[in-house]
This record gives sequence, C-alpha cells and structure tokens, in this order.
Amino acid sequence: MKIGLLGLGTVGTGVLHLINQNGKNIEKKIGEKIEIKKILVKDPDKKRAPLADGKIIFNPDDILEDEEIDVVVEVMGKEHPALEYMIKAIKKGKNVVTANKEIIAAYGKELIKLAMENNVSILYEASVGGGIPIIRPLKQCLAANKIHEIKGILNGTTNYILTEMKEKGLDFEEALKDARQKGYAESDPTDDVDGFDAARKLAILCTLAFNKYILPEKIYTKGIRSVSKSDIKYAEELGYNIRLIACAKVDEEDRLEAWVHPVMIRKGNPLNGVNGVFNAILVDGNAVGEVMFYGQGAGMMPTASAVVADIMDVKNNIVIKNGYEDANIVSFEDTVSKYYIRLIALDKPGVMSKITGILGNKDISLLSVVQKGVMEDTAEIVLITHIASTGKIFEALKEMQSLKEIKSIKSVIRVEGE
Amino acid sequence: MKIGLLGLGTVGTGVLHLINQNGKNIEKKIGEKIEIKKILVKDPDKKRAPLADGKIIFNPDDILEDEEIDVVVEVMGKEHPALEYMIKAIKKGKNVVTANKEIIAAYGKELIKLAMENNVSILYEASVGGGIPIIRPLKQCLAANKIHEIKGILNGTTNYILTEMKEKGLDFEEALKDARQKGYAESDPTDDVDGFDAARKLAILCTLAFNKYILPEKIYTKGIRSVSKSDIKYAEELGYNIRLIACAKVDEEDRLEAWVHPVMIRKGNPLNGVNGVFNAILVDGNAVGEVMFYGQGAGMMPTASAVVADIMDVKNNIVIKNGYEDANIVSFEDTVSKYYIRLIALDKPGVMSKITGILGNKDISLLSVVQKGVMEDTAEIVLITHIASTGKIFEALKEMQSLKEIKSIKSVIRVEGE
Repeated sequence: MKIGLLGLGTVGTGVLHLINQNGKNIEKKIGEKIEIKKILVKDPDKKRAPLADGKIIFNPDDILEDEEIDVVVEVMGKEHPALEYMIKAIKKGKNVVTANKEIIAAYGKELIKLAMENNVSILYEASVGGGIPIIRPLKQCLAANKIHEIKGILNGTTNYILTEMKEKGLDFEEALKDARQKGYAESDPTDDVDGFDAARKLAILCTLAFNKYILPEKIYTKGIRSVSKSDIKYAEELGYNIRLIACAKVDEEDRLEAWVHPVMIRKGNPLNGVNGVFNAILVDGNAVGEVMFYGQGAGMMPTASAVVADIMDVKNNIVIKNGYEDANIVSFEDTVSKYYIRLIALDKPGVMSKITGILGNKDISLLSVVQKGVMEDTAEIVLITHIASTGKIFEALKEMQSLKEIKSIKSVIRVEGE
Repeated sequence: MKIGLLGLGTVGTGVLHLINQNGKNIEKKIGEKIEIKKILVKDPDKKRAPLADGKIIFNPDDILEDEEIDVVVEVMGKEHPALEYMIKAIKKGKNVVTANKEIIAAYGKELIKLAMENNVSILYEASVGGGIPIIRPLKQCLAANKIHEIKGILNGTTNYILTEMKEKGLDFEEALKDARQKGYAESDPTDDVDGFDAARKLAILCTLAFNKYILPEKIYTKGIRSVSKSDIKYAEELGYNIRLIACAKVDEEDRLEAWVHPVMIRKGNPLNGVNGVFNAILVDGNAVGEVMFYGQGAGMMPTASAVVADIMDVKNNIVIKNGYEDANIVSFEDTVSKYYIRLIALDKPGVMSKITGILGNKDISLLSVVQKGVMEDTAEIVLITHIASTGKIFEALKEMQSLKEIKSIKSVIRVEGE
C-alpha cells in the first residue's frame, strides 16, 4: 500500500513517525505494509526528519500522477492549493485522507460527491477532535440512533485558557499569553479564541450526526474574549464552569440550530470536568442516551493516530457513504436559553428597577440579581435570567446599553439547564 | 435483510422497538429494510409487545434453518443453549450479532475462529458498555496505536451504589437495597457487586486492545462489598472518589496485567467524575494519548442501539478480523500500587509501632498514617502506603491479622498515582 504525503509539517511528521514506530502492528492488522513513497514539500532548504530521506519531492504531480500510489494523505493545511491537489487526486482514482477542517467544512459536500463519482474514498477523522474517535462512532456505532443533539468542547486552546483562568485566577489576556508561551495558541489566535475553529468542526459534525450541510459562516459564533476572571469566579460560586461550547440540534420540524458560545456548564455534566487542552463531544441519541468522547483534540501524534486509522480503513475498504441535505437553519435569535449578564452601572437609586423593567417588558424573568460590589460611583451587577428567547435578550441588552446609567455590558454567557 | 431474533427479553424488545422507531433512517443509511422475520421465545403464555405479533416461534430451527435469514441476533443471555444456537447459526452460514458477554468472554476465541472458517461475521459491540461505542473505536479508530492500558468503570450497578453511598452517606447494604428497588441491581447481586461482570467485559476488551486472550476467571477480581461509608468519607477528605475499576495493561515484556478492584481515583482524572449508572472506558495509546468513552453501560435502548449498529455493519460488510494469542499473565501479587488500608486495633501503646514494623520489614513505606477515632477500647487506623508490591502488601496484611492487637482489617483499596 503506497502513500503520497502532501505536506511535512507537524501532522505529516507525526504520520511518518507513527507508521515507522507501529508499522509491524499495523501490517499485522491490515495484512499489508504501509509505505510512504513520496512526500511533497515546498522549501528545499528546510531540515527534515531522517525518515523522510529519499522521499522528498517538490512537484505535486510526482504524487498525483504516480500510478502506484493508492492513497494521497493531505496534511498541508490551508485551503489552496490543498483543495486543488485533493480534487486532482480523486479524479485520478486515488483515495484521499485529510486532516484539513477548513476544506472539509467548506467543500466537504462537493468533495464527497466527487469521490463517490470516482469510486474512491475521502476520509477525514483527523479533522475533528484530533485523535478522538468521533466521526466513525457517529457514522457506524450510533448509526441506529436518531441523534437529537451534539454538544462539545471542540477547541483545546480556548479550553486551556479557560482552565488556566480558573485555576490560577488569571485574566483572559494573561492566560492567552501563557497559552502562547506553551505553544497552545498561535501568534494570531483569532481562529481559536473567537470560535471559528470550533464552528468549522461543528459544521463537519452536523453533516455526520444529522446529514445536514451547514457552512461554518452560517453558524452563530462567539468566542471567549469577553469572559473575564470575575465571570469565572461568579460561575464557580454558582456551581458552574465556563466552557466554549459548540452545539447543534435538530428540532421537531427538522430545522438545525447550531452555534458556538461560552456556556456555564453545571457540575455533574461530564463536560464540566474537561480541563486543559482536552476536547470532549457529548452526543444525545434517541436510543443510546448520552454518550461522550474525550481526548486530546490536537497535537502531532493524536492527529497522526486518526490519519493512519483512516489509511487503514481505506485498505479495509470501510467507507460509509452519506448523502447530505442542506440544512434549514434556526436563527440564533430564535434559540432559547438561560443567560448570565454582567454589567457595570452607576451606583444610583432606581438603576436596578430600570433594568428589571426593560427585562420585564420583554417577558424575560429573572432567576437572580446580585449587586456584586461598588467601586467609586459604579456597581457591578450580575443577572441570571430564566429561559428566554435570545432575540429578546439581545433587544433588552440594546435598550440597557442606551441607558445613561449603564456604563457597559461586560459579559453575556449562556447558562445550561431548564 | 431478514433477521432471526433469539430471545425477547429486555434487549430483544429494545431491538424490536428501535428497528420499528428508526427504521426509515436505518433503511436510508444501509439502502435496505431490516425486517425481523422470526422471534424465538420459550414461554407460550407470556404477553409480548404487539410488534412481535405473527413472528413468535418456539423451535430454534425455525430460525437456524431458515435460508432467508441473513443475521441471527442472540439476546437470550446465559450460556446454554445460546452458545449451541450461535454455533449452529454460524455453521449454517449466518452472521451472528450478540450482546452476550458471558459467551464472548468464555468462548469468543473459538466462535471467531468458527465464523472465519464459515466466512461469516460475529459482532458483539453490545457485550461491553451497552450503547457506548468502544469495540469499533478500538478495532478501527485507534488501530494505528499500540495500546498501553485500558482502565474503566464497566459496571453501572456498582457505580450507582458507590455514587449513592457518597451522595447520601449510605452504607453498602443500604445503597444496594436502593439499587434493587430502582431495578439497577438483581435479586442476586453477586455478578455485579463482586466484580464478575466487570471481569468478563475486561476479558473482552483485552482481546480487542491487545489481541490477547484471557479467561475472566484468570482476572484477579475484588468487588465493592468491603467498601464502607467511612472509606468513602476518608477518600473524599483526601481528594479521591472510590470507583470499581477494571484495568488491563501490557508491560515491556508483553505480559498482561488484568484486574478488577476498588480504586481511589483522584480529582482531575476523568474517571473521577463518572457518576450513577454511567460507564466510562479510558484508553491509553502510544499515539493518541488518553481517550475516554462515556455513556450508559446498560439498559434496554442503549444496548439495542449497539445491537442494531452491529446488524447495520453486517450489511455494510464492515468486519475487522483479529487474531488472538493467549496472554502471558502477570500475577496480581506482582502488580504494584499505592494502597489504602483501614483497620480496627486495640487502643494500646505500641500497636502503631508493631504495624509500621511489619510494613517496614516488607519494604513498604508509608505516605500517611492516621488514627481516626477511638471507640471504647478500639481505634480506627487508616494507612496509605507508597507504591508497593501487592504480594508484599498481602503478606503484611496476613501478619497484621495474626497480631492479637488487631481486631480486623476493614478495607484494602488501591490508590491511583505515582
């Protein structure tokens, strides 16, 4: 079984090492040796792992037009030219294994169709949750279920930041700096901290769990920049942990609700205890109930583990074909939730009654209101609402912002529970 | 696709309902309708679900010799005659799906060999962890890994009892009574509370994770009867939760260590937060690191979910064949661990020095010794050792028991951590 590797960054190097390290075991399992025949790289001057010796090439067609190569493994990242190479590989009758969530989220539907037309497989377990088995369990193990909901911690960087903020009492910027130093956050952290990475993975999971296609940009996405150490402290007092949650569910009319947002997760929910760079995905099926998958969602070897499992499945000819339909999407404003709102107001009589008045007019009732402390002439107020329409919450927030007594709305976090 | 169902107890009824309820979805996924053609039952007078109307038969050969039936689903439970029916089904060229952990743990090797010879599949996802996907993830998703260790909460009844003991401050017998009332424990609870059920599931997992065959009776098995509410209280003070853990690992010489034992699991370990009837299985692979699978390990619909997924995989022809080798087993005495020991001794000077003397002579050093309280003329003593050989711990316990100053050794619990 001959492999062409497109890219030799972190994941590519992991794949090379893993096949070298566990090659004998793998051969025993699939009855054939996996050989990485050629590796496409860009920079001729960069130093490579000795395992790559004699395999390096610079022209993609050396792989894409090599008749001997059965499987093209795309681990270059970014959309272009990776997408064009994958299309060419499929048209040449090669199976494709990829870890590229950008491409699968944006072009998965077209690529899968193309693969079916060309009678080859495209496998992408590594694109969601690194080494955590999730795609195959959804396609196979839970295949007999109608899945109601998927709720997960899909981004390790933000989960690391939130964990550090709680454990060390850091503010967001300090924890981000720490994550950068440890190599868990990139120099431009937008993709992670603003939730875009989680939204892409959620889009992929929607196709698998619900057979519904949604583009990541159609998913309402709010990251963790506005979560402060006070929010984390209040959450703790109330028995919650704040987590960046990617959530998707299908309602009775078969419409898809999908969003990424900070959520207070109560103790007892298995997502509450997921700390550090770990990811976890909770799936609710009509027969199986709640099941959760937990592990490292990124990193060289965990991701390589998923890529190599996909290569082995190509050999075992284990490919489940799914047909997707475009999703009928519920707007985020139409979703409902309890909300936690923290704001800074002038410390004057009558402010609280104005706030509760605004909420009351929108039919939003309060679970609790606490004035948390006074500094000079301002007070910090923490509100928790009963379940309310998100649209109404947004309208109320807008009205509050226009009050001269309210200096700023600091945080808006969803709160789980009925 | 025509199915013959052997048995119509809880799981069988669940399978019937699930295929009825999600049938359209299932048909869409596998491109064929699943039809339960015949159902074998014993008692002609028992009332059955209306879905079973017209399908009930009393002679197993009506299924085993029916040429139209592709898949025989065995959900009768117990060893005999289920085993004989499965063997006959395989010899007649039928695929077999089963939820029967007794049979798979005891005869799995022979059945898999027989199935391979007859070119059919035998699938048993439901035999471990109910609806939690674990067998397929181990066989496929983590196939590229060398797995070092599997550690899990494999029995929901004991986990429910331990959870209730902690949350409501109950003693073992009280919590068992409560579990019986709720239908979580059987009238004879031995299989669950003494760890035999967990040992069977662990034996099955060993074949999948390590390709090593071990009979359940070769697994050192200790249940939770001796865990008392004091132990749970002390564990909490120390930052632990007591869980019945089934653990298997392979050492550098490829020898298998496998046991079922109460273990103190520290906070931060994802197994710590697994409560109630839920199960969880933590797998440590050399590439993927730690991954965990969590969900309901039993119950009608979760188990049916796994059975139907297996039926769908037969249709999709997704069967991974494994060859097993007999395990070279590490004796439990040769395993090492920290140990928690609680004992009742006479409240006399010199007792403590005798105890520490015995331990010192066996090269067992202590992490902590606490005298927890005195009642009349006796004192309760709690010891926690550093990592020690289990054999030496057993020898020391025997010597302690022979001291006239020691009235009884109440609990011996493993403690996780280096």
